[in-house]
Amino acid sequence: MLKVGIVGATGYGGEELIRLLLSHPEVEITVLAAKMEGEKLSISEIFPAFEGKIDLPCSDLDIEKMAADSELVFLALPHKVSMEMAARFLSLGKKVIDFSADYRFNEAQIYEEWYEVKHTRKELLKEAVYGLPELNREEIKQARLIANPGCYPTSVILGAAPLVSRGLVDPENIIADSKTGVSGAGRWPGKGFHFGEIQENFKAYKVAGHRHQPEMEEQLGRLAREKTRITFTPHLAPMKRGILSTIYMNLKKKESPEELRQIYKDFYEDEPFVRITEPDKFPETKDVWGSNYCHIGFKVDERAGRAIVISAIDNLIKGASGQAVQNMNIMWGFEEDEGLDHLGPRP
Amino acid sequence: MLKVGIVGATGYGGEELIRLLLSHPEVEITVLAAKMEGEKLSISEIFPAFEGKIDLPCSDLDIEKMAADSELVFLALPHKVSMEMAARFLSLGKKVIDFSADYRFNEAQIYEEWYEVKHTRKELLKEAVYGLPELNREEIKQARLIANPGCYPTSVILGAAPLVSRGLVDPENIIADSKTGVSGAGRWPGKGFHFGEIQENFKAYKVAGHRHQPEMEEQLGRLAREKTRITFTPHLAPMKRGILSTIYMNLKKKESPEELRQIYKDFYEDEPFVRITEPDKFPETKDVWGSNYCHIGFKVDERAGRAIVISAIDNLIKGASGQAVQNMNIMWGFEEDEGLDHLGPRP
Amino acid sequence: MLKVGIVGATGYGGEELIRLLLSHPEVEITVLAAKMEGEKLSISEIFPAFEGKIDLPCSDLDIEKMAADSELVFLALPHKVSMEMAARFLSLGKKVIDFSADYRFNEAQIYEEWYEVKHTRKELLKEAVYGLPELNREEIKQARLIANPGCYPTSVILGAAPLVSRGLVDPENIIADSKTGVSGAGRWPGKGFHFGEIQENFKAYKVAGHRHQPEMEEQLGRLAREKTRITFTPHLAPMKRGILSTIYMNLKKKESPEELRQIYKDFYEDEPFVRITEPDKFPETKDVWGSNYCHIGFKVDERAGRAIVISAIDNLIKGASGQAVQNMNIMWGFEEDEGLDHLGPRP
Amino acid sequence: MLKVGIVGATGYGGEELIRLLLSHPEVEITVLAAKMEGEKLSISEIFPAFEGKIDLPCSDLDIEKMAADSELVFLALPHKVSMEMAARFLSLGKKVIDFSADYRFNEAQIYEEWYEVKHTRKELLKEAVYGLPELNREEIKQARLIANPGCYPTSVILGAAPLVSRGLVDPENIIADSKTGVSGAGRWPGKGFHFGEIQENFKAYKVAGHRHQPEMEEQLGRLAREKTRITFTPHLAPMKRGILSTIYMNLKKKESPEELRQIYKDFYEDEPFVRITEPDKFPETKDVWGSNYCHIGFKVDERAGRAIVISAIDNLIKGASGQAVQNMNIMWGFEEDEGLDHLGPRP
Repeated sequence: MLKVGIVGATGYGGEELIRLLLSHPEVEITVLAAKMEGEKLSISEIFPAFEGKIDLPCSDLDIEKMAADSELVFLALPHKVSMEMAARFLSLGKKVIDFSADYRFNEAQIYEEWYEVKHTRKELLKEAVYGLPELNREEIKQARLIANPGCYPTSVILGAAPLVSRGLVDPENIIADSKTGVSGAGRWPGKGFHFGEIQENFKAYKVAGHRHQPEMEEQLGRLAREKTRITFTPHLAPMKRGILSTIYMNLKKKESPEELRQIYKDFYEDEPFVRITEPDKFPETKDVWGSNYCHIGFKVDERAGRAIVISAIDNLIKGASGQAVQNMNIMWGFEEDEGLDHLGPRP
Repeated sequence: MLKVGIVGATGYGGEELIRLLLSHPEVEITVLAAKMEGEKLSISEIFPAFEGKIDLPCSDLDIEKMAADSELVFLALPHKVSMEMAARFLSLGKKVIDFSADYRFNEAQIYEEWYEVKHTRKELLKEAVYGLPELNREEIKQARLIANPGCYPTSVILGAAPLVSRGLVDPENIIADSKTGVSGAGRWPGKGFHFGEIQENFKAYKVAGHRHQPEMEEQLGRLAREKTRITFTPHLAPMKRGILSTIYMNLKKKESPEELRQIYKDFYEDEPFVRITEPDKFPETKDVWGSNYCHIGFKVDERAGRAIVISAIDNLIKGASGQAVQNMNIMWGFEEDEGLDHLGPRP
Repeated sequence: MLKVGIVGATGYGGEELIRLLLSHPEVEITVLAAKMEGEKLSISEIFPAFEGKIDLPCSDLDIEKMAADSELVFLALPHKVSMEMAARFLSLGKKVIDFSADYRFNEAQIYEEWYEVKHTRKELLKEAVYGLPELNREEIKQARLIANPGCYPTSVILGAAPLVSRGLVDPENIIADSKTGVSGAGRWPGKGFHFGEIQENFKAYKVAGHRHQPEMEEQLGRLAREKTRITFTPHLAPMKRGILSTIYMNLKKKESPEELRQIYKDFYEDEPFVRITEPDKFPETKDVWGSNYCHIGFKVDERAGRAIVISAIDNLIKGASGQAVQNMNIMWGFEEDEGLDHLGPRP
Repeated sequence: MLKVGIVGATGYGGEELIRLLLSHPEVEITVLAAKMEGEKLSISEIFPAFEGKIDLPCSDLDIEKMAADSELVFLALPHKVSMEMAARFLSLGKKVIDFSADYRFNEAQIYEEWYEVKHTRKELLKEAVYGLPELNREEIKQARLIANPGCYPTSVILGAAPLVSRGLVDPENIIADSKTGVSGAGRWPGKGFHFGEIQENFKAYKVAGHRHQPEMEEQLGRLAREKTRITFTPHLAPMKRGILSTIYMNLKKKESPEELRQIYKDFYEDEPFVRITEPDKFPETKDVWGSNYCHIGFKVDERAGRAIVISAIDNLIKGASGQAVQNMNIMWGFEEDEGLDHLGPRP
């Protein structure tokens, strides 16, 4: 049994990670840590749904103790907090899957500009692997440090990758219009997330200024092997979970919907968690809700020479904790869908 | 007191129209009709909220009777049903405000192609006025027949008009990514609108194929005085009301955010129901929920030379019944905000 | 024009009060105060829906200034905060409508026990009038200080009053099972009100221990002229607004549904804001949503000799701000439904 | 591998049953039937979430074919439809788990009165076992025909059983006030379940007249060994899933909360799916959402000598499909939590 520790166990990402790992036959959760301000509570006191499933104590992080009791550490923390912590665990011989943005960029400069903080562990940036299995499976196998992708980037990169990597669209002229549920912002983010402010409300925010934009540009640029530019508009929808990204890309030459469909089918042929929707059917977040799947569909606007690609994921699973488990499975050579083969409740 | 009749009184548009007219000091509702299959019920039996406010009977339509008892008829009906009915009321000397698409197009051909039905009253298309007060106030004053705009077109046209009409953007390369609440589809549209299918779900539908697309193109084309082409993607959000449209337009030359803001402020200077949001603030549907306002905000993506304009309306008020009342006010010379000056419940 | 000031203008109750007063033809809002920590913002910057309707500054409370500029002060504040403030405004010759519980009890002792704080203005308890117009209209007319009722008590007292006051039910054996939307708890009450904790969740809280229980018992006890005891269970439903109370009372003798219905119709005969539902129809919160109405319906369980009474209100209107406006209308001799005759958006 | 067939595969109960069985290691779904009106579609075309997991065709029921290919048949059908069908499958040597009410009553008379239909297979009523494992585990082991309990009765019976069976409360004076999500009414039940009618709405329905009332009375009466009478009020909450029942029972003698808690702990000591909440903590539907658990908590109102018991289940799992799987596990001697040990997504 692989022994794992989780830091940030009481956030949405941490809680969902615990839930997924509970049904993983090869893994044992051994240590849980969170900001507890000196308190030590059983995780099942905090989350009554876990009673009888896992009754481990949850307390403030003791790095040495966690390192002693686990081989792999998940850091389900906000950016900036993980940076030093990841380095410490690595130096103690542990592997790390980091949910934050701290190790997602190849160059410190873009990170420092968008996240407005100095990167104090630049030497690890080259080593860290961007943990999107559909693009980087081989590197993930060997990695000590995984930068688990952002939720929006997961949905946009998976949606755009087949066309961008084959050079079929203009990479400098991509628009990604994404809609997310509320849980993506974490559990306690202040008054803007009060039920009264969200229910029956829809809004855009950080228009053309969200930190996930450079992350998408770096990853898609690598695939395009040329400069890539995305106009990214995130929106908040009145739901707990789910991201739907509508991606507009200009086709370099005319492509029929059938040709495009074949390109997507081929690109994701062996992928366990990507499905291409039937012709003229479009993804809905409810079809991936509670699961690690990404659904992709599309339409060609022939008048405008434009491909409209729509992708749907569950932001907390394929967009966070499920993807982390998938990375772990690849790193340890488990079946890639181990612990991830359960679908979400229907409806 | 202006006497009005309402056909389609039991749909969402009709019900909301009744509510708005109840607080209008110059109007008396005299006749209500709907598909009642021979039954005759008091409207307050159907909608208990109306008890004591209006207890008129609602029965199947009797055109002669409605014409005898009213000067203005609102047709809150699906397209195709209004076509002949509007003509009949006009021939009986009544004025008509039609919620359907039947008289929104200047040429029958586009209508017939997109709505897949013959237009049997083409002679009225030239006379009908597209009832968007912000663009056509003078024609509305004289009109006998108002084609009340579609909900999506209202939000997209108001958002794009200032830039399109001044020739500042490429009119053949507009993208409108719109998100709507469920009520836009009417009251009883089948299993796709069951609560279990909508809650915690987000989806695109009729991608680059929705009937409101040619309506937007015709109206914006008129403003641009050149061919206009829109890639339009409607989405369904888990909420009852509200449309947020995110509109991407390529700027012909560099414009600062301040310049753009001034263009919008000038364009809508005297408009009672359009507000431009503060710099770097974006519209939210909750701020217009329950009111006739349209809020517009924007951002310039300087790298891409692209304006991102965001507009928010309440689809049942500014997108339907409120706009109909506004048109009526203009036609009869009432204060334009009479019956429309109440804000929606907060929150 | 009656000049009014509002303290607590940025909470849900305050915001909704502003909205209602904006459509009141006899009232002018002259001063707004809230906890602003030294800042002074236009209320329309805080709430964009108010732009052009009211642009008054909102700042920290200056009691003298507010007293100088207004005749009536609304205190939309949590309990304990209003106590001294109300006394100060009274001593400056102003009238006060207090949203808190501070002046709702006849005896300080019950207040002090349930609210765990000393009452420092006991001399005002006798003078304060419990502002439920359906029971205390005459006293309200003369009052200087109104204790605006709690939202749950409004729904339960209106539902139970006709049977309790006529001595038809056992007053020591009443059960009130109430369900509320989230806004009743105010705008910023911490992590339990995050959208992710509320959506798709239903729970009971403060079972048989909520502070509104003694308030109901005091008011119903007065009507019964004997000791009254209520088992009160509040529940939180995943919605913004609305309270539905299901009240179980044991009938002293057999009553037919028709007799009960007549008792309710008689009791509320001249009330502008109470409606009795049709036989075998039950209230729904959507029918009162956004309005000042209370709907009441009932059923007799003949086997058990029990009346089941169901009442519905909008907790922010009849349960708070609307009732405050109704009280003001009575105090100043305005039409009782002035500013309150608009129905909520439908649906 | 146990081969099972499912009739009613496209309803909410059927869809969720498929989902649960997909993760059951001992079961193979072999035949799917539903009202398809002659059509034959892959279940994964109907529900895209199943793609790659199960691609069986779904067509109209062919009883012989289903009997030939399966040992156990689940009937996820409305009442009245199952009656003959269950008998046919039994006569063909199959076992049946029936989701409807057709075999839940010991005597045909009560069924016929409440469901207003003749019972044509009375001879099977004595044989059928009411499939609530916590009460009837031994009979379930031997059963050929399981009447899977109603969702409301599951929540109320589990909540009341410990006190009723030990004779601690007055069985003729029980009140159950239940609140359910929308999915309990099935997938396509008409206009009352349109999102626009449910969102931001809360209502009671079938007050003291719901068909689940006699079902509760029969089962609790058996436990009490005396006449049992329940006043049952169902309510509809704006959520997809979850039932919270608040049960009021009069204690025959004084019991401390500690004593009551011990009674509940003892009664459910070995139950895999019942949890008693911590003292002064109350169940929330989100804690059982997506799982087969029932959470029970309570409070004693000492003044009134009344126990208030609150139970929470997921109506589609413990209240329908999960309980059916649990019954199957008991019948075939599988681990009782096989296929049911996954928790629901959090949050």
